[in-house]
Amino acid sequence: MKKFLDEDFMLNSQSAAILYHEYAEKMPIIDFHNHLEPQEIYEDKQFSDISDLWLGGDHYKWRLMRAFGVPEEQITGNADPYEKFLAFAKMMPYTIGNPVFHWTHMELTRYFGITDLLSEKTAARIYAECNEMLKSAEFSVRNLLLRMNVKALCTTDDPTSDLKYHLAMRDEGFSIKVLPTFRPERAMAIEKPDFVDYISKLALSAGLAKIENIIDLEKALLNRIEFFAAAGCRISDHSLDAELFSEASSAKADQALQKALRGESLSSTERRSYKGYLLSFLGKAYFDHDFIMQLHIGAIRNNSQRMYQLLGPDKGYDSMDDFNYAAQLSGLLNEYDLADKMPYTIIYCLNGKENDMLATMIANFQGGGVKGKLQLGSAWWFLDHKKGMLNQMEAFASNGLISTFVGMVTDSRSFLSFPRHEYFRRILCSFLGGLIDQGEYPADYEFVGGIVQDICYNNINKMMFKINKNDV
Amino acid sequence: MKKFLDEDFMLNSQSAAILYHEYAEKMPIIDFHNHLEPQEIYEDKQFSDISDLWLGGDHYKWRLMRAFGVPEEQITGNADPYEKFLAFAKMMPYTIGNPVFHWTHMELTRYFGITDLLSEKTAARIYAECNEMLKSAEFSVRNLLLRMNVKALCTTDDPTSDLKYHLAMRDEGFSIKVLPTFRPERAMAIEKPDFVDYISKLALSAGLAKIENIIDLEKALLNRIEFFAAAGCRISDHSLDAELFSEASSAKADQALQKALRGESLSSTERRSYKGYLLSFLGKAYFDHDFIMQLHIGAIRNNSQRMYQLLGPDKGYDSMDDFNYAAQLSGLLNEYDLADKMPYTIIYCLNGKENDMLATMIANFQGGGVKGKLQLGSAWWFLDHKKGMLNQMEAFASNGLISTFVGMVTDSRSFLSFPRHEYFRRILCSFLGGLIDQGEYPADYEFVGGIVQDICYNNINKMMFKINKNDV
Amino acid sequence: MKKFLDEDFMLNSQSAAILYHEYAEKMPIIDFHNHLEPQEIYEDKQFSDISDLWLGGDHYKWRLMRAFGVPEEQITGNADPYEKFLAFAKMMPYTIGNPVFHWTHMELTRYFGITDLLSEKTAARIYAECNEMLKSAEFSVRNLLLRMNVKALCTTDDPTSDLKYHLAMRDEGFSIKVLPTFRPERAMAIEKPDFVDYISKLALSAGLAKIENIIDLEKALLNRIEFFAAAGCRISDHSLDAELFSEASSAKADQALQKALRGESLSSTERRSYKGYLLSFLGKAYFDHDFIMQLHIGAIRNNSQRMYQLLGPDKGYDSMDDFNYAAQLSGLLNEYDLADKMPYTIIYCLNGKENDMLATMIANFQGGGVKGKLQLGSAWWFLDHKKGMLNQMEAFASNGLISTFVGMVTDSRSFLSFPRHEYFRRILCSFLGGLIDQGEYPADYEFVGGIVQDICYNNINKMMFKINKNDV
Repeated sequence: MKKFLDEDFMLNSQSAAILYHEYAEKMPIIDFHNHLEPQEIYEDKQFSDISDLWLGGDHYKWRLMRAFGVPEEQITGNADPYEKFLAFAKMMPYTIGNPVFHWTHMELTRYFGITDLLSEKTAARIYAECNEMLKSAEFSVRNLLLRMNVKALCTTDDPTSDLKYHLAMRDEGFSIKVLPTFRPERAMAIEKPDFVDYISKLALSAGLAKIENIIDLEKALLNRIEFFAAAGCRISDHSLDAELFSEASSAKADQALQKALRGESLSSTERRSYKGYLLSFLGKAYFDHDFIMQLHIGAIRNNSQRMYQLLGPDKGYDSMDDFNYAAQLSGLLNEYDLADKMPYTIIYCLNGKENDMLATMIANFQGGGVKGKLQLGSAWWFLDHKKGMLNQMEAFASNGLISTFVGMVTDSRSFLSFPRHEYFRRILCSFLGGLIDQGEYPADYEFVGGIVQDICYNNINKMMFKINKNDV
Repeated sequence: MKKFLDEDFMLNSQSAAILYHEYAEKMPIIDFHNHLEPQEIYEDKQFSDISDLWLGGDHYKWRLMRAFGVPEEQITGNADPYEKFLAFAKMMPYTIGNPVFHWTHMELTRYFGITDLLSEKTAARIYAECNEMLKSAEFSVRNLLLRMNVKALCTTDDPTSDLKYHLAMRDEGFSIKVLPTFRPERAMAIEKPDFVDYISKLALSAGLAKIENIIDLEKALLNRIEFFAAAGCRISDHSLDAELFSEASSAKADQALQKALRGESLSSTERRSYKGYLLSFLGKAYFDHDFIMQLHIGAIRNNSQRMYQLLGPDKGYDSMDDFNYAAQLSGLLNEYDLADKMPYTIIYCLNGKENDMLATMIANFQGGGVKGKLQLGSAWWFLDHKKGMLNQMEAFASNGLISTFVGMVTDSRSFLSFPRHEYFRRILCSFLGGLIDQGEYPADYEFVGGIVQDICYNNINKMMFKINKNDV
Repeated sequence: MKKFLDEDFMLNSQSAAILYHEYAEKMPIIDFHNHLEPQEIYEDKQFSDISDLWLGGDHYKWRLMRAFGVPEEQITGNADPYEKFLAFAKMMPYTIGNPVFHWTHMELTRYFGITDLLSEKTAARIYAECNEMLKSAEFSVRNLLLRMNVKALCTTDDPTSDLKYHLAMRDEGFSIKVLPTFRPERAMAIEKPDFVDYISKLALSAGLAKIENIIDLEKALLNRIEFFAAAGCRISDHSLDAELFSEASSAKADQALQKALRGESLSSTERRSYKGYLLSFLGKAYFDHDFIMQLHIGAIRNNSQRMYQLLGPDKGYDSMDDFNYAAQLSGLLNEYDLADKMPYTIIYCLNGKENDMLATMIANFQGGGVKGKLQLGSAWWFLDHKKGMLNQMEAFASNGLISTFVGMVTDSRSFLSFPRHEYFRRILCSFLGGLIDQGEYPADYEFVGGIVQDICYNNINKMMFKINKNDV
C-alpha cells in the first residue's frame, strides 16, 4: 500500500518511477495556455492571504463548496477570508476522488512545505503558516513561477490589448518569457450586444478610422496579429460551441457583418456564415504568421441564468456539452488544407467521449513533412484528472503518435497551479511506464525517457520557438 | 488468484476489504426506487416456485435466454416452470462476464445458502432445494426484506392510486417503511391513446368533476401530491426520452391539453409544449412538497414491434438510446433554479457516455447551502454492473463530491434482488479502497469508512427523512 | 516486469496464460472479413520486397508516417522502396502505445523469425533479411495463409464480379476456402456519378437486358445473390453512414431509382427512401439465402479533399464519425423482425462510445431459438487495439453473452496481418482470465477454455458453415 503523496505519488509501476525521477522531474515548463494576469506578473504581486490566492477566483473549488452545502456568502460572498478558508478546509477531506484534493495538497507541499492534510482541525494553523510565508519575497508572483522552473508562459489576451505588460517584461529582460495569446473571441461574437462597440474598439486599436465591411475587419485583425507577433505572440485561441463551423463566402460574411453593424438582428444562418468565414480566414492568417491555433470545443456556459445575473460569467456555472461535431470539424480543417494553409493546431475537447474521434480526425490533416502538426490537446478542464488524462493519452497513442505530443497546460487563473504539470508528468510516466512493465514496449528507459522529456518540454519548445532539444 | 464469490468478492485491495467488512457490510438498506408490488408485501406473499420468483418477470434474464437460443416458449411462454428453470440453468455458465452470473449466485447464497454453481447438472437439485425452502415462513416476502436489513423502500405508483396497501402497512406498524413514489407518467403522456381516459381517472381520484384545462390539471396533480405526501411519499419519478424538455408557457400547454382533450391530434411542438410546461410545473411542486425528483433518461422502448404486439411492454425489448441532451437538461434545471425552486434531484442515465456530462451539469445547480442537492444517480439498468458502476463513481468523484452520494437502488421487480446493494457496496469499497491503496488518499479508514456508510445509508436517510446519522 | 513480446505477451494473469496456451493458441482461423485480392491468392503471388508488402497499401502506417513528418514522397510517392522502408523504420520506436508497434514486431517474429526491434539502426539488415526470405516459396501468399492455420477466408466483392478466382480455387480444391462476400455498395450509392453506369453493369452481370425500375433491380440483385451463393458465399457487407436507415415503400424507392436512372438529381429524402428500402429488401434476401449480414457503421470518409484529389479514396484520410443512430438502427432491424426475416447480423461500430448502445440494441432482436443471431462485431479499424478490443468485449459481456461471440477478422488488405488474430486471442484470454483471477468467475479452465475456443473458431464455423464443434 502506498503512502499518500509520497515521492512515487501516481507512479504505479517501477518503470513509471524511473521515467519520472530520472527524466521528467527536472524538465522546465512552458505553460502555453493560461489565464494569468500579465499585470500581476509585471508588478510582481505579493499575495497576503492564502484564502484570496486559493479561493479568490477558482471555480473548481467554488463548485465543490456549493455541492458541499457551503452558503454562497462563504464562497463568492462577503464572508471574511478566514471564514471562507475554514469552509474550504472543512470540505477538503470529503473531496475524496476529486483532483482538487490532490492539487490542494500538492500546492501546500510544493510551495509551502506543509505536509499536513487540510481539514477543519488543521485549518487555523495552515492558514497562519501560509499567510506568514506569503509575506516573504520568495512568494512573490515572479518567484512562484521561477521556483516551478517556468521558462515561458502564454496569457490569454484580447486583440485590442496594448500588451504593455508583456512588452515591459520583455524590455526589462525578465528571465521568463511572458507572451500573449491572440484570442479574438469578441470579434467572433456577432450575436453579443456589445459587438458593435467592440468592433469600433478593434478599429481604433488597429489604427483604422472605421470597420465597415469584412475587408476592413480582416485588415484590422491582421494588423493586430502583426502587433501581437511583434510582441512575441506565438499562439492563438478560440472557444467553439455546437455550431462550430459552416462553410461561407466572404460575401455572405460581409452581408452578415454589415447587418450587425447596422444594429439589425441576424438569423442563425447569417451568424454561422459570419463565424464560419471568419474562423476560416483566421486559421489561414495564423498559418501565414506561424501562430499555433488552439481550439477549445465543448463547453455549455452560464447554465444557471439566476447566478449569471447575480455573479456574471466564469463563476462556476459552465459545464460539459455533449454535441457531436466530427463533420463540422472536418469541414473547418478541410478549409485550411484546401488552401494549403494548415496551421499548427491543438484541439482540446471538454467531453471525453470525443477523444477517439478527435485523435483520428486530426490524423486526416497531418502531413507536409511536419511532425506533430495537429495535436489532441491535453485533458481540459473537467477532464483534467487522472482518468481524464489517461483517456486522452490512450486516445492519442492508440490513434496517432503520443511521442509528438506537446503536453500540459495549466489553463489556470492561479499562480499556485503549476504543480499540475508535475501531476500530468507523473500520470504520463505511469502510462508509458505501464507499457514497459506490462511488456508492451521494450525496457529502453533512455529512449522512453527521451520521449517523456519531449512531451514535457521539447516538443512544445520546438513547435513554439523552433528550438531543437540539443540546441543551447 | 481469488476464489469465486468468497468473502472478499469484488474487493480488489486490502483497503477495500477493510472498508467493506468493517463499515459497509452491516449498514441497513433504504431502497428508494424499485418496482415491487405493495400488495404482495402487504399480503406477505409466499412464492412456491423459484422459477416463478426468478423468471416470472425478469427481462434481464429473458434477454440473455433469447440470445442463448432458448425458444420463447421456455421464456415467456407456456413451458412448465422447471423446463424454464432448466433452460436458464443450462445457460448460466455461459453468462461469463455478465452481472446476471453474479446476481444469480449471490441470490442463491445469500437467501438459500446454496453455494453450488447453477448449471444443467445442478439444476434439478437446486430447484428442489429452493422450492423446499420457499415453503418456509422465512421466505415470505416480508421476511426476505427483513433478512436484508431493509429499513425503507419506495415502490412506483400512479398518481391515481389509492395507496391502500401502503396505508395499511403504515397503520399496522410494519417495521419496514413501504412508501409510494409519485410517478405521473400517464399524465405526461399526451400522445397516448388512453390519455383522455386517464385524465378523467385522474380528475376522479382528485375529487374533481372534470379536468378541462391546465389549471384543473395542476389542481388535480397537486391534490394527488398532497395525498401521496400524507401517505408518507417522499419521492417522485419521471422517465424522459429524447425530447426531454422545451420551455413553454402555461397558455401553450393549456392549448395543447385542450386540443388533446377534444381528441384532436397534436403536433410535435404542441406535445413538447405540454410536456415541457408540465415537467417544469411538477418539479416546482416537488420542491414545495419537499419531494425528491428522480429523472431517468435515455431508454428507447419497444424496439421490436412484433414482440410488442405479442407480449406488450417491459418484456425485454427496451434498450439504450444515444441521443444528446445537455442543452435540454440545462434548460429544464434552469427553470427550477430561476424560480428558486430546485428540488432534490437524482438523474439516472442509461448511456454511460453521458456520465461526465451529467456530473458536471448537476454542479451548475448545486448551492443554496444544501449538501448534495443534485445527484448523479447510481448506474441504472444496462449499466448496473461492475464497470458501469465504477464509471458512474469515477464520474461523480472526479467532477463533484462522491461523499454526498445517496447510493444504490435495486430498481427491480424481484424480491430477491436486494443483494445488488451488497454488490454495489463491494464495488464502492473497491473504488474508495483503491484510492487508499494507490496512495491517492490517506489511509484513514475510520474517516473513509464513514463516507462509505454515508453513501450506503446516511445520505439518503438524511435527504429523505431528515435523519442525521447520529440521531437515534 | 514482463519482457516485450515474450510468450506471455498481452497475457496479464496466470489464468490468461493458461487459457491462451492451452486453448486458444492452436485454434485455426476463419477470417470472415478482409480485403485480400482473390487473384493474388489464386496466382499464389510471391512478393519480392517487404516494403511493398508492408507499405504498399497500409493506410494505418501511412497516417502515422504523416504525423511523424515523413514527406508524402516517401509514403505514397515515388521514393524507392528502401527509402520508404527506412522512413518507416526510423519512426517505429516512436510509435509507443500504438498497435502498429505491436503488429509490426509480431509480423517480423511470426513470419520472418526476426526478434530485433525495427529502427533506423536495424532497418538495413531487417530489410535485407526479409527480402531474402520473401524469395522462398514458403513466403508465397498461399503459404503465408497456410502457415497461419487459416481454414477459410472471405474477401470483399462487388455483385457484378464473376468470382472467377474464387471458383477456380474451389475447383482446384485449394485447402483453404476462399469465399466471396456480397457487398452491394455501388448499388446502394444512388448519389454517385457512376451510379447509372453501374446499374447497367449490374443488369448485364445478371443477364437482364436492362434495369428500369425497382422490380428489375431486385431481380438483378437476387440473381447475383444466388450466383454468389452458388460460389460458396455465406456473408454480405454494408458500410453505413449517418443516414443509415429510413423506412420507405417500394413505390417511393422506385420513384427515386427511376429519377436517378433518368439522370435527374435527387433530394436527400429521395436518396434516403431508396437506400432505406433497398437495405430492408437486401436484409430479407440475406435471410432467405442464409447469408450473414455485416453492417459497418461510423466512418467519415475522404476528409481531406485536397488529398482525395491527389490520391483518391482509401489513402488514409478517413476517420471516426460521431453521429448517433440508435433510433435509425432500431428501425432497420425492426423491418427484418416484422417480416420474421432477421438474418444473422454482425454490427461493427467505428466509434467506441456506441459499444454499449449496440450491445443492448442487438439484444432486442435476438430470439427465435437461434444462439447468438445478432453480434457486436469485433473492434473495428481505429478501435482495433488493446483498449478498443477490451471495451468491445466488456460491452458484449456486460450486456449479452460473449460466449456466443463470433470473434476476430483482420479486415485487412495485407497478407501479413493474420497475427492480429493472435493479438485478439491474447486479449480475449486476458479478459476472461482476468475474471477468473479476480474471483469473478470460477477457475474452471476446461469450461472457460471451451468458450475461448468457441469465440476463436467454433462459433463462426457454426454460424457460417453449420459445423458443430464436435463434427469432424
